[in-house]
Amino acid sequence: MTSESPWDLSSIVPTLMEFRHKRDWEQFHRPKELAAAIAIEAAELQELFLWKEGESAVEIQNDEERMQEISDEIADILIYSIYLANDLGINLNKAILRKIEENSERY
Amino acid sequence: MTSESPWDLSSIVPTLMEFRHKRDWEQFHRPKELAAAIAIEAAELQELFLWKEGESAVEIQNDEERMQEISDEIADILIYSIYLANDLGINLNKAILRKIEENSERY
Amino acid sequence: MTSESPWDLSSIVPTLMEFRHKRDWEQFHRPKELAAAIAIEAAELQELFLWKEGESAVEIQNDEERMQEISDEIADILIYSIYLANDLGINLNKAILRKIEENSERY
Amino acid sequence: MTSESPWDLSSIVPTLMEFRHKRDWEQFHRPKELAAAIAIEAAELQELFLWKEGESAVEIQNDEERMQEISDEIADILIYSIYLANDLGINLNKAILRKIEENSERY
Repeated sequence: MTSESPWDLSSIVPTLMEFRHKRDWEQFHRPKELAAAIAIEAAELQELFLWKEGESAVEIQNDEERMQEISDEIADILIYSIYLANDLGINLNKAILRKIEENSERY
Repeated sequence: MTSESPWDLSSIVPTLMEFRHKRDWEQFHRPKELAAAIAIEAAELQELFLWKEGESAVEIQNDEERMQEISDEIADILIYSIYLANDLGINLNKAILRKIEENSERY
Repeated sequence: MTSESPWDLSSIVPTLMEFRHKRDWEQFHRPKELAAAIAIEAAELQELFLWKEGESAVEIQNDEERMQEISDEIADILIYSIYLANDLGINLNKAILRKIEENSERY
Repeated sequence: MTSESPWDLSSIVPTLMEFRHKRDWEQFHRPKELAAAIAIEAAELQELFLWKEGESAVEIQNDEERMQEISDEIADILIYSIYLANDLGINLNKAILRKIEENSERY
Protein backbone atom coordinates (compact mmCIF):
# COMPACT_ATOMS: atom_id res chain seq x y z
CA MET A 1 0.00 0.00 0.00
CA THR A 2 1.34 3.43 -0.89
CA SER A 3 0.74 6.55 1.15
CA GLU A 4 -1.92 8.93 -0.05
CA SER A 5 0.25 11.77 -1.33
CA PRO A 6 1.90 11.08 -4.69
CA TRP A 7 4.98 12.87 -3.35
CA ASP A 8 5.36 10.89 -0.15
CA LEU A 9 7.83 8.14 -0.97
CA SER A 10 8.19 6.94 2.64
CA SER A 11 6.26 3.72 2.21
CA ILE A 12 8.04 2.76 -1.00
CA VAL A 13 11.63 3.13 0.24
CA PRO A 14 11.59 0.01 2.47
CA THR A 15 10.16 -1.98 -0.47
CA LEU A 16 13.04 -0.80 -2.67
CA MET A 17 15.62 -1.74 -0.06
CA GLU A 18 14.09 -5.17 0.40
CA PHE A 19 13.95 -5.74 -3.36
CA ARG A 20 17.67 -5.04 -3.60
CA HIS A 21 18.62 -7.00 -0.51
CA LYS A 22 16.82 -10.16 -1.63
CA ARG A 23 18.80 -10.15 -4.89
CA ASP A 24 22.07 -9.37 -3.08
CA TRP A 25 22.63 -6.36 -5.33
CA GLU A 26 24.10 -4.02 -2.68
CA GLN A 27 27.57 -5.19 -3.77
CA PHE A 28 27.04 -3.63 -7.22
CA HIS A 29 25.53 -0.41 -5.91
CA ARG A 30 28.64 1.62 -5.19
CA PRO A 31 27.84 5.34 -5.26
CA LYS A 32 29.78 5.80 -8.50
CA GLU A 33 27.80 3.03 -10.22
CA LEU A 34 24.50 4.43 -9.01
CA ALA A 35 25.44 7.85 -10.38
CA ALA A 36 26.19 6.23 -13.76
CA ALA A 37 22.88 4.37 -13.63
CA ILE A 38 20.97 7.61 -12.98
CA ALA A 39 22.69 9.25 -15.98
CA ILE A 40 21.87 6.29 -18.24
CA GLU A 41 18.21 6.30 -17.22
CA ALA A 42 18.08 10.07 -17.72
CA ALA A 43 19.34 9.57 -21.29
CA GLU A 44 16.63 6.97 -21.89
CA LEU A 45 14.07 9.50 -20.71
CA GLN A 46 15.57 12.09 -23.05
CA GLU A 47 15.44 9.69 -25.97
CA LEU A 48 11.63 9.70 -25.71
CA PHE A 49 11.74 13.37 -26.76
CA LEU A 50 14.48 13.22 -29.41
CA TRP A 51 13.69 14.79 -32.83
CA LYS A 52 10.35 16.03 -31.44
CA GLU A 53 10.36 19.78 -31.11
CA GLY A 54 7.72 22.07 -29.72
CA GLU A 55 5.55 19.41 -28.11
CA SER A 56 3.36 20.66 -25.26
CA ALA A 57 2.61 18.76 -22.06
CA VAL A 58 -1.00 18.31 -23.23
CA GLU A 59 -0.02 16.66 -26.51
CA ILE A 60 2.15 14.20 -24.63
CA GLN A 61 -0.56 13.48 -22.08
CA ASN A 62 -2.92 12.46 -24.87
CA ASP A 63 -0.55 9.68 -25.93
CA GLU A 64 -1.10 6.91 -23.39
CA GLU A 65 1.76 4.70 -24.51
CA ARG A 66 4.28 7.50 -24.36
CA MET A 67 3.03 8.58 -20.96
CA GLN A 68 3.70 5.07 -19.71
CA GLU A 69 7.22 5.09 -21.11
CA ILE A 70 7.98 8.51 -19.60
CA SER A 71 6.54 7.44 -16.27
CA ASP A 72 8.74 4.31 -16.28
CA GLU A 73 11.91 6.27 -17.02
CA ILE A 74 11.22 8.87 -14.32
CA ALA A 75 10.63 5.98 -11.92
CA ASP A 76 14.02 4.47 -12.83
CA ILE A 77 15.77 7.80 -12.20
CA LEU A 78 14.02 8.12 -8.86
CA ILE A 79 14.80 4.54 -7.83
CA TYR A 80 18.55 4.92 -8.35
CA SER A 81 18.49 8.37 -6.74
CA ILE A 82 16.78 6.91 -3.68
CA TYR A 83 19.35 4.10 -3.44
CA LEU A 84 22.19 6.61 -3.66
CA ALA A 85 20.66 8.99 -1.13
CA ASN A 86 19.94 6.08 1.21
CA ASP A 87 23.45 4.62 0.94
CA LEU A 88 25.14 7.97 1.61
CA GLY A 89 22.68 9.02 4.31
CA ILE A 90 21.42 12.02 2.36
CA ASN A 91 18.08 13.46 3.47
CA LEU A 92 16.29 14.14 0.16
CA ASN A 93 13.91 16.59 1.71
CA LYS A 94 16.64 18.69 3.27
CA ALA A 95 18.84 18.45 0.16
CA ILE A 96 16.06 19.88 -2.00
CA LEU A 97 15.16 22.54 0.56
CA ARG A 98 18.78 23.68 0.71
CA LYS A 99 18.89 23.94 -3.07
CA ILE A 100 15.68 26.01 -3.18
CA GLU A 101 17.13 28.42 -0.64
CA GLU A 102 20.37 28.69 -2.58
CA ASN A 103 18.53 29.30 -5.84
CA SER A 104 16.23 31.85 -4.18
CA GLU A 105 19.24 33.99 -3.35
CA ARG A 106 20.76 33.59 -6.79
CA TYR A 107 17.75 34.29 -9.05
CA MET B 1 8.83 23.43 7.38
CA THR B 2 9.53 20.00 5.94
CA SER B 3 7.70 16.84 6.94
CA GLU B 4 9.43 14.48 9.32
CA SER B 5 10.31 11.65 6.91
CA PRO B 6 13.28 12.40 4.65
CA TRP B 7 11.39 10.61 1.87
CA ASP B 8 8.15 12.56 2.15
CA LEU B 9 8.45 15.35 -0.41
CA SER B 10 4.82 16.52 -0.06
CA SER B 11 5.59 19.73 1.76
CA ILE B 12 8.40 20.73 -0.58
CA VAL B 13 6.49 20.37 -3.84
CA PRO B 14 4.30 23.47 -3.37
CA THR B 15 7.45 25.47 -2.52
CA LEU B 16 9.05 24.32 -5.77
CA MET B 17 5.98 25.25 -7.80
CA GLU B 18 5.80 28.67 -6.16
CA PHE B 19 9.52 29.27 -6.77
CA ARG B 20 9.03 28.60 -10.47
CA HIS B 21 5.80 30.55 -10.79
CA LYS B 22 7.24 33.70 -9.21
CA ARG B 23 10.05 33.73 -11.78
CA ASP B 24 7.65 32.94 -14.66
CA TRP B 25 9.76 29.95 -15.68
CA GLU B 26 6.88 27.63 -16.61
CA GLN B 27 7.28 28.82 -20.21
CA PHE B 28 10.78 27.28 -20.38
CA HIS B 29 9.80 24.03 -18.67
CA ARG B 30 8.51 22.02 -21.59
CA PRO B 31 8.74 18.29 -20.85
CA LYS B 32 11.56 17.87 -23.36
CA GLU B 33 13.61 20.64 -21.76
CA LEU B 34 13.08 19.21 -18.28
CA ALA B 35 14.25 15.81 -19.51
CA ALA B 36 17.40 17.45 -20.88
CA ALA B 37 17.93 19.30 -17.60
CA ILE B 38 17.68 16.04 -15.63
CA ALA B 39 20.28 14.42 -17.91
CA ILE B 40 22.64 17.38 -17.55
CA GLU B 41 22.37 17.36 -13.75
CA ALA B 42 22.91 13.59 -13.74
CA ALA B 43 26.16 14.11 -15.66
CA GLU B 44 27.26 16.71 -13.12
CA LEU B 45 26.62 14.15 -10.39
CA GLN B 46 28.64 11.57 -12.32
CA GLU B 47 31.51 14.00 -12.77
CA LEU B 48 32.01 13.99 -8.99
CA PHE B 49 33.04 10.32 -9.30
CA LEU B 50 35.09 10.50 -12.51
CA TRP B 51 38.62 8.97 -12.42
CA LYS B 52 37.92 7.70 -8.88
CA GLU B 53 37.61 3.94 -8.86
CA GLY B 54 36.79 1.62 -5.99
CA GLU B 55 35.60 4.27 -3.54
CA SER B 56 33.25 2.98 -0.86
CA ALA B 57 30.23 4.85 0.52
CA VAL B 58 32.07 5.30 3.84
CA GLU B 59 35.09 6.98 2.24
CA ILE B 60 32.81 9.44 0.49
CA GLN B 61 30.83 10.13 3.65
CA ASN B 62 34.02 11.14 5.43
CA ASP B 63 34.58 13.94 2.93
CA GLU B 64 32.18 16.69 3.97
CA GLU B 65 32.72 18.94 0.96
CA ARG B 66 32.08 16.13 -1.50
CA MET B 67 29.01 15.02 0.41
CA GLN B 68 27.63 18.53 0.01
CA GLU B 69 28.32 18.54 -3.72
CA ILE B 70 26.71 15.12 -4.18
CA SER B 71 23.71 16.15 -2.12
CA ASP B 72 23.28 19.29 -4.26
CA GLU B 73 23.39 17.36 -7.52
CA ILE B 74 20.90 14.73 -6.34
CA ALA B 75 18.65 17.60 -5.27
CA ASP B 76 18.86 19.13 -8.77
CA ILE B 77 17.93 15.81 -10.37
CA LEU B 78 14.98 15.46 -8.01
CA ILE B 79 13.81 19.03 -8.54
CA TYR B 80 13.58 18.68 -12.34
CA SER B 81 12.03 15.21 -11.98
CA ILE B 82 9.38 16.65 -9.70
CA TYR B 83 8.60 19.47 -12.15
CA LEU B 84 8.29 16.98 -15.00
CA ALA B 85 6.12 14.57 -13.02
CA ASN B 86 3.94 17.46 -11.84
CA ASP B 87 3.51 18.95 -15.33
CA LEU B 88 2.55 15.62 -16.87
CA GLY B 89 0.39 14.53 -13.93
CA ILE B 90 2.55 11.53 -13.11
CA ASN B 91 2.14 10.07 -9.62
CA LEU B 92 5.74 9.38 -8.53
CA ASN B 93 4.70 6.91 -5.90
CA LYS B 94 2.64 4.82 -8.30
CA ALA B 95 5.26 5.09 -11.06
CA ILE B 96 7.94 3.66 -8.76
CA LEU B 97 5.62 0.98 -7.40
CA ARG B 98 4.77 -0.15 -10.93
CA LYS B 99 8.47 -0.37 -11.77
CA ILE B 100 9.21 -2.46 -8.68
CA GLU B 101 6.44 -4.87 -9.61
CA GLU B 102 7.69 -5.11 -13.18
CA ASN B 103 11.28 -5.72 -12.00
CA SER B 104 10.11 -8.29 -9.46
CA GLU B 105 8.73 -10.42 -12.25
CA ARG B 106 11.79 -9.97 -14.42
CA TYR B 107 14.59 -10.70 -11.92
CA MET C 1 36.41 2.96 -50.10
CA THR C 2 37.88 4.37 -46.92
CA SER C 3 41.23 6.11 -46.70
CA GLU C 4 44.14 4.14 -45.35
CA SER C 5 44.53 5.77 -41.95
CA PRO C 6 41.88 4.72 -39.41
CA TRP C 7 41.88 8.33 -38.17
CA ASP C 8 41.33 9.98 -41.55
CA LEU C 9 37.58 10.51 -41.79
CA SER C 10 37.74 12.63 -44.97
CA SER C 11 36.34 10.02 -47.30
CA ILE C 12 33.50 9.09 -44.98
CA VAL C 13 32.12 12.58 -44.39
CA PRO C 14 30.62 13.01 -47.89
CA THR C 15 28.96 9.59 -47.51
CA LEU C 16 27.40 10.71 -44.23
CA MET C 17 26.11 13.92 -45.75
CA GLU C 18 24.65 12.08 -48.72
CA PHE C 19 22.99 9.52 -46.44
CA ARG C 20 21.26 12.32 -44.55
CA HIS C 21 20.35 14.35 -47.61
CA LYS C 22 18.68 11.40 -49.37
CA ARG C 23 16.39 10.89 -46.37
CA ASP C 24 15.70 14.62 -46.03
CA TRP C 25 16.81 14.55 -42.40
CA GLU C 26 18.59 17.93 -42.35
CA GLN C 27 15.34 19.45 -41.08
CA PHE C 28 15.59 17.41 -37.86
CA HIS C 29 19.30 18.04 -37.33
CA ARG C 30 19.24 21.36 -35.53
CA PRO C 31 22.41 21.81 -33.48
CA LYS C 32 20.50 21.36 -30.22
CA GLU C 33 19.00 18.08 -31.38
CA LEU C 34 22.37 16.78 -32.54
CA ALA C 35 23.87 17.63 -29.15
CA ALA C 36 21.06 15.65 -27.49
CA ALA C 37 21.65 12.74 -29.87
CA ILE C 38 25.37 12.67 -28.99
CA ALA C 39 24.54 12.59 -25.28
CA ILE C 40 22.04 9.77 -25.76
CA GLU C 41 24.52 7.67 -27.76
CA ALA C 42 27.20 8.37 -25.13
CA ALA C 43 24.85 6.97 -22.47
CA GLU C 44 24.30 3.85 -24.58
CA LEU C 45 28.07 3.43 -24.76
CA GLN C 46 28.27 3.84 -20.99
CA GLU C 47 25.57 1.27 -20.44
CA LEU C 48 27.88 -1.37 -21.93
CA PHE C 49 30.15 -0.87 -18.90
CA LEU C 50 27.53 -0.51 -16.15
CA TRP C 51 27.93 -2.71 -13.04
CA LYS C 52 31.28 -3.97 -14.42
CA GLU C 53 34.14 -2.64 -12.36
CA GLY C 54 37.86 -3.07 -12.87
CA GLU C 55 37.70 -4.48 -16.40
CA SER C 56 40.89 -3.98 -18.42
CA ALA C 57 41.05 -3.15 -22.13
CA VAL C 58 42.40 -6.65 -22.82
CA GLU C 59 39.46 -8.40 -21.15
CA ILE C 60 37.06 -6.37 -23.23
CA GLN C 61 38.98 -7.02 -26.44
CA ASN C 62 38.63 -10.75 -25.89
CA ASP C 63 34.84 -10.47 -26.02
CA GLU C 64 34.02 -10.12 -29.71
CA GLU C 65 30.34 -9.36 -29.28
CA ARG C 66 30.99 -6.58 -26.79
CA MET C 67 33.72 -5.13 -28.99
CA GLN C 68 31.16 -4.88 -31.79
CA GLU C 69 28.65 -3.14 -29.55
CA ILE C 70 31.26 -0.68 -28.28
CA SER C 71 32.46 0.00 -31.80
CA ASP C 72 28.88 0.70 -32.93
CA GLU C 73 28.23 3.15 -30.11
CA ILE C 74 31.49 5.05 -30.68
CA ALA C 75 30.54 5.24 -34.36
CA ASP C 76 27.14 6.74 -33.45
CA ILE C 77 28.80 9.38 -31.25
CA LEU C 78 31.22 10.24 -34.04
CA ILE C 79 28.50 10.40 -36.69
CA TYR C 80 26.41 12.95 -34.78
CA SER C 81 29.56 14.89 -33.84
CA ILE C 82 30.54 15.08 -37.51
CA TYR C 83 27.08 16.30 -38.51
CA LEU C 84 27.18 18.99 -35.81
CA ALA C 85 30.73 20.10 -36.69
CA ASN C 86 29.80 20.16 -40.39
CA ASP C 87 26.60 22.15 -39.87
CA LEU C 88 28.31 24.77 -37.71
CA GLY C 89 31.46 24.91 -39.84
CA ILE C 90 33.72 23.66 -37.05
CA ASN C 91 37.10 22.30 -38.12
CA LEU C 92 37.49 19.16 -35.97
CA ASN C 93 41.22 19.06 -36.41
CA LYS C 94 41.72 22.65 -35.28
CA ALA C 95 39.18 22.30 -32.45
CA ILE C 96 41.09 19.34 -31.00
CA LEU C 97 44.46 21.03 -31.51
CA ARG C 98 43.25 24.11 -29.65
CA LYS C 99 42.04 21.96 -26.77
CA ILE C 100 45.39 20.13 -26.54
CA GLU C 101 47.21 23.45 -26.38
CA GLU C 102 44.85 24.74 -23.71
CA ASN C 103 45.23 21.56 -21.66
CA SER C 104 49.01 21.64 -22.08
CA GLU C 105 49.13 24.97 -20.30
CA ARG C 106 46.74 23.88 -17.59
CA TYR C 107 48.23 20.49 -16.60
CA MET D 1 51.20 20.96 -38.05
CA THR D 2 47.80 19.48 -38.83
CA SER D 3 46.87 17.81 -42.10
CA GLU D 4 44.92 19.84 -44.61
CA SER D 5 41.51 18.18 -44.35
CA PRO D 6 39.52 19.19 -41.27
CA TRP D 7 38.33 15.58 -41.06
CA ASP D 8 41.75 13.93 -41.18
CA LEU D 9 42.73 13.40 -37.55
CA SER D 10 45.81 11.29 -38.34
CA SER D 11 48.36 13.91 -37.42
CA ILE D 12 46.65 14.82 -34.16
CA VAL D 13 46.34 11.33 -32.72
CA PRO D 14 50.07 10.91 -31.92
CA THR D 15 50.00 14.32 -30.20
CA LEU D 16 47.09 13.18 -28.04
CA MET D 17 48.86 9.96 -27.09
CA GLU D 18 52.03 11.83 -26.23
CA PHE D 19 50.10 14.36 -24.14
CA ARG D 20 48.60 11.55 -22.09
CA HIS D 21 51.79 9.54 -21.80
CA LYS D 22 53.83 12.48 -20.48
CA ARG D 23 51.32 12.97 -17.66
CA ASP D 24 51.14 9.24 -16.93
CA TRP D 25 47.36 9.29 -17.32
CA GLU D 26 46.99 5.92 -19.08
CA GLN D 27 46.38 4.37 -15.66
CA PHE D 28 43.15 6.38 -15.26
CA HIS D 29 41.93 5.77 -18.80
CA ARG D 30 40.19 2.43 -18.41
CA PRO D 31 37.57 1.98 -21.14
CA LYS D 32 34.74 2.40 -18.64
CA GLU D 33 36.15 5.69 -17.36
CA LEU D 34 36.63 7.00 -20.89
CA ALA D 35 33.02 6.13 -21.70
CA ALA D 36 31.92 8.09 -18.61
CA ALA D 37 34.13 11.02 -19.64
CA ILE D 38 32.55 11.09 -23.12
CA ALA D 39 29.07 11.15 -21.58
CA ILE D 40 30.00 13.97 -19.20
CA GLU D 41 31.46 16.08 -22.01
CA ALA D 42 28.38 15.38 -24.13
CA ALA D 43 26.21 16.75 -21.30
CA GLU D 44 28.38 19.87 -21.15
CA LEU D 45 27.81 20.33 -24.87
CA GLN D 46 24.08 19.88 -24.36
CA GLU D 47 24.05 22.43 -21.57
CA LEU D 48 25.06 25.09 -24.10
CA PHE D 49 21.65 24.59 -25.75
CA LEU D 50 19.46 24.21 -22.65
CA TRP D 51 16.32 26.40 -22.42
CA LYS D 52 17.02 27.68 -25.95
CA GLU D 53 14.44 26.39 -28.38
CA GLY D 54 14.22 26.85 -32.10
CA GLU D 55 17.71 28.26 -32.66
CA SER D 56 19.08 27.77 -36.17
CA ALA D 57 22.68 26.95 -37.05
CA VAL D 58 23.10 30.45 -38.50
CA GLU D 59 22.02 32.20 -35.29
CA ILE D 60 24.54 30.16 -33.34
CA GLN D 61 27.30 30.84 -35.85
CA ASN D 62 26.82 34.57 -35.37
CA ASP D 63 27.67 34.26 -31.68
CA GLU D 64 31.45 33.94 -31.58
CA GLU D 65 31.74 33.14 -27.89
CA ARG D 66 29.18 30.36 -28.09
CA MET D 67 30.83 28.93 -31.19
CA GLN D 68 34.08 28.70 -29.24
CA GLU D 69 32.37 26.92 -26.34
CA ILE D 70 30.64 24.47 -28.66
CA SER D 71 33.85 23.83 -30.54
CA ASP D 72 35.67 23.11 -27.25
CA GLU D 73 33.03 20.63 -26.07
CA ILE D 74 32.97 18.76 -29.40
CA ALA D 75 36.76 18.58 -29.18
CA ASP D 76 36.54 17.06 -25.67
CA ILE D 77 34.08 14.42 -26.90
CA LEU D 78 36.36 13.61 -29.82
CA ILE D 79 39.48 13.45 -27.66
CA TYR D 80 38.03 10.87 -25.27
CA SER D 81 36.50 8.93 -28.16
CA ILE D 82 39.91 8.77 -29.85
CA TYR D 83 41.57 7.54 -26.64
CA LEU D 84 38.92 4.85 -26.25
CA ALA D 85 39.10 3.73 -29.89
CA ASN D 86 42.89 3.71 -29.71
CA ASP D 87 43.02 1.69 -26.48
CA LEU D 88 40.58 -0.93 -27.76
CA GLY D 89 42.07 -1.04 -31.26
CA ILE D 90 38.89 0.18 -32.92
CA ASN D 91 39.28 1.58 -36.45
CA LEU D 92 37.06 4.70 -36.39
CA ASN D 93 36.76 4.83 -40.13
CA LYS D 94 35.58 1.23 -40.41
CA ALA D 95 33.30 1.56 -37.39
CA ILE D 96 31.49 4.52 -38.95
CA LEU D 97 31.33 2.87 -42.37
CA ARG D 98 29.77 -0.25 -40.85
CA LYS D 99 27.16 1.90 -39.11
CA ILE D 100 26.28 3.74 -42.31
CA GLU D 101 25.78 0.42 -44.10
CA GLU D 102 23.62 -0.89 -41.26
CA ASN D 103 21.52 2.29 -41.23
CA SER D 104 21.20 2.23 -45.02
CA GLU D 105 19.44 -1.10 -44.82
CA ARG D 106 17.25 -0.04 -41.95
CA TYR D 107 15.97 3.35 -43.19
